[in-house]
Amino acid sequence: MIDIDFAKGDGLVPVIVQDHADGTVLMVAYMNEQSWKHTLETGTATFWSRSRGELWIKGQSSGNTQLVKDVFVDCDSDTILLQVEQVGGAACHEGYRSCFFRRVVDDELQVQGERIFDPAEVYSK
Amino acid sequence: MIDIDFAKGDGLVPVIVQDHADGTVLMVAYMNEQSWKHTLETGTATFWSRSRGELWIKGQSSGNTQLVKDVFVDCDSDTILLQVEQVGGAACHEGYRSCFFRRVVDDELQVQGERIFDPAEVYSK
Repeated sequence: MIDIDFAKGDGLVPVIVQDHADGTVLMVAYMNEQSWKHTLETGTATFWSRSRGELWIKGQSSGNTQLVKDVFVDCDSDTILLQVEQVGGAACHEGYRSCFFRRVVDDELQVQGERIFDPAEVYSK
Repeated sequence: MIDIDFAKGDGLVPVIVQDHADGTVLMVAYMNEQSWKHTLETGTATFWSRSRGELWIKGQSSGNTQLVKDVFVDCDSDTILLQVEQVGGAACHEGYRSCFFRRVVDDELQVQGERIFDPAEVYSK
């Protein structure tokens, strides 16, 4: 049995999602205990949507699910690291591979990389 | 000027720290606006310690500072990714390279990797 400290963050812990093949950080989301269990049981990354207040099986709308390859827990048991295979190649709802597609350059944000899908197309289905 | 959404998390945003050379996720910490500015101005990773309630220049006690090589901001502007050179080779206060030194294996946590420093030694100085 693995104890995750959900209490510290009012029932939620941050989760880093990293590409298992090349180490790219894809996104950060949050899990409650239900989504943690669902992730371990199904092998598919499942979060808690703070905006919608519901279980969020990543990729259910876009098809871009995340197949869990490895799971790590940090020293304080209050942060989780998932290493995944990103189905469809894009984790970000804006269509980029990573949510971290903007780089700080001279006090400005510069977009890095190309859109892999068009959000208007994917989320209107 | 870069707008970070500090309001969403009551003044704090989570920050992922990643080794710039090989992509290892080293730790997650939090920044307020003061630590964000300090990080950009000094090039040394600076957080807000939630437990101590003070500015936390990472490595001030242990000597294991983090030299910032690149900074990314996520799609919602509420999470930051720092790519750093980890001085001393270990980011975790428990002496491991990464705070994520425990891997989930069969519903147990298994330690991965070796201690690089002895916390009792480093933090008693």
